[in-house]
Amino acid sequence: MYKLILRHPGPTPIPKKVNMAMSQDIISHRSPEFIKLFRETTARIKPLFGTEQDVLLLAASGTAALEAAAVNAVSPGEKVVVISIGAFGDYFAAICEKYGFDVHKLQKTWGEACTPEELEAFLKPLNNIKAVFATYCETSTGVLNPIEDLAKIVKKNTDALFIVDGVSCIGAVPAKMDEWGIDILATGSQKALMLPPGLALISVSEQAWKAIENNQTPVYYLNLLTYRDWFEQGMTPNTSAVTLIYGLSAVCDLIEEETFARTVERHELMKKMVKEAMNALDIDLLASEPFMSPTVTAIRTPKYLDLEQFLQLLKQKYHLDFAGGLGSLQGQIFRFGHMGYCFPADVLEAVSLMEAGLKELSYPFEMGAGVKAAADTLSATKADIQVKI
Amino acid sequence: MYKLILRHPGPTPIPKKVNMAMSQDIISHRSPEFIKLFRETTARIKPLFGTEQDVLLLAASGTAALEAAAVNAVSPGEKVVVISIGAFGDYFAAICEKYGFDVHKLQKTWGEACTPEELEAFLKPLNNIKAVFATYCETSTGVLNPIEDLAKIVKKNTDALFIVDGVSCIGAVPAKMDEWGIDILATGSQKALMLPPGLALISVSEQAWKAIENNQTPVYYLNLLTYRDWFEQGMTPNTSAVTLIYGLSAVCDLIEEETFARTVERHELMKKMVKEAMNALDIDLLASEPFMSPTVTAIRTPKYLDLEQFLQLLKQKYHLDFAGGLGSLQGQIFRFGHMGYCFPADVLEAVSLMEAGLKELSYPFEMGAGVKAAADTLSATKADIQVKI
Repeated sequence: MYKLILRHPGPTPIPKKVNMAMSQDIISHRSPEFIKLFRETTARIKPLFGTEQDVLLLAASGTAALEAAAVNAVSPGEKVVVISIGAFGDYFAAICEKYGFDVHKLQKTWGEACTPEELEAFLKPLNNIKAVFATYCETSTGVLNPIEDLAKIVKKNTDALFIVDGVSCIGAVPAKMDEWGIDILATGSQKALMLPPGLALISVSEQAWKAIENNQTPVYYLNLLTYRDWFEQGMTPNTSAVTLIYGLSAVCDLIEEETFARTVERHELMKKMVKEAMNALDIDLLASEPFMSPTVTAIRTPKYLDLEQFLQLLKQKYHLDFAGGLGSLQGQIFRFGHMGYCFPADVLEAVSLMEAGLKELSYPFEMGAGVKAAADTLSATKADIQVKI
Repeated sequence: MYKLILRHPGPTPIPKKVNMAMSQDIISHRSPEFIKLFRETTARIKPLFGTEQDVLLLAASGTAALEAAAVNAVSPGEKVVVISIGAFGDYFAAICEKYGFDVHKLQKTWGEACTPEELEAFLKPLNNIKAVFATYCETSTGVLNPIEDLAKIVKKNTDALFIVDGVSCIGAVPAKMDEWGIDILATGSQKALMLPPGLALISVSEQAWKAIENNQTPVYYLNLLTYRDWFEQGMTPNTSAVTLIYGLSAVCDLIEEETFARTVERHELMKKMVKEAMNALDIDLLASEPFMSPTVTAIRTPKYLDLEQFLQLLKQKYHLDFAGGLGSLQGQIFRFGHMGYCFPADVLEAVSLMEAGLKELSYPFEMGAGVKAAADTLSATKADIQVKI
């Protein structure tokens, strides 16, 4: 009966219009109707990647797209740099190690971003780097790497491909793949794109296609060359995730209605609202500006609070579901997801319920201060940010 | 406006109850609610595989499950036998060749099954076979291999694993993985399981797990050991296809309501109805008994008919969508899918529209004879086959 308030960094809530689009009668993935849907939808998604390249669609989770990027572009033994600022950077490194790449890991403390200076210094003693891997938004820490600046460093100092995990932010943040010099950009459906899990999206630069064409590593389901061949016919090599592509088309409707620029602004606003609310409650954040992600905020466990008990209370009494910390941050932080089908009103709701929970646990704070700060931030913005969908 | 009558061998129509289940509010793939759903649903799907083993769920198409079976169980250079009776057998062989297995292909003419005697003779001169691959239902020809008998031959003559592609039949035909001696059985969601594409299901025997544990081939997204580890916690390693698992739970409701035994009978009946209708129309079938699939019938192009023109007419005038032939059978056959959310009434509808199309193209036949034969077959069955869902 109760409405679940899912404030995770993915999967995220699905708009009703997307559910409805996904409930349309299914069609064959080899029919002219599908080809039309596929061509139109993959074209409409390009602005979210900032690319003139094709955006390939795989029936798989975002992880599969990351693996596809690695295994298609790099051969065993080749040198790669993996920038890790958290759990998903480690994940990228694990994939590269599994396939026998010569992995040089630029490891940052969780909660920090990698700066262009750090990357440049790290690259200096290395040569013949085949690829540099980076996470755009690190879901485990709520940190956004300065991807545009990192791309410049890679291009200035190396001939390497720049391969970016955009899973928990593409569709909510600016991305200019072509202009910045990203060679492979991958994301998943269940984050800012407001879809259920199961669709991976990946786009590849000319330079990366050349590397992929020369790569001999055996790969079948995740073979990007096969996807490129079929893309030209308006299809995928295997049975497409037809319903998710119906849904993606509806997502394009929603974002085009809001305009992508305002979608980006809305996410910036929500980040700011959460930040101001936590400041007002004197609760620390893990990340700091200018590297805080507009899609997810990692909040440090309020002093003297039993985090497990707090999250359980919020979930069971108020049906508010935050995500816990991963790895070494378990118990240290919780994560407030605010991406995709999430609006300033949802932030106010969650902050308010959070305060109710804090009060019940006798946490010392001024009740209402967080909501007030968030609402102040909201009211200070221009009128057209919160659009009706 | 017009209802599309999709009579393909997949994707197949989705029941409304499944669409509704898939429209539920999304939950985290790491939440107790999801774990409960996952555990219950994976247990309920076991009878369709005929196994006491776990049924693992991958967010991917059926192809990925076939690749997972191959790459996890067999190492490069190892000897395998691939029984190919059509396009999807060839597909299995292509995957095996891609990964550098020593492939011995038992190639049958398209439209025929592989008999136990043929397999036994083929295996005789070979030794040290790591795995035998076979297709249960060959979607491209509508032929069902005698999997139980083939399994016996494999187990009697070799120590090999028996790896079966069940994509276009599991959920509609008997399958007794444990009893028959199938080591890996894989299927996809979008066929007899009445779901959208995007979920792969795979089950693995004890013997196959041993082989997988000893295999060193690098694989990440399709690493079955990782799926097994996470399965014990009621989850998948990556973000689960939550909505498809909601849908799978509804599919279990529907099949349990009908009872799986009657689901199997219903498919047998529909196969017989199509066969009798085509006989009455004097139109030849590609396959013959006892190897005709209960899920899809390959029908030879009626004499003197332009197949392309015929299928276009049915699609454009009557919104009836049959599938064409694949590979060398293109133009030679068309395929009438009758699996999953398909009932005897749907067969009558499609046969009747087919007759209307034949008449319009001045095909010489007795109008109504096909429908009459199919209806005769239907009326001769016992009452409880066509259940209300």
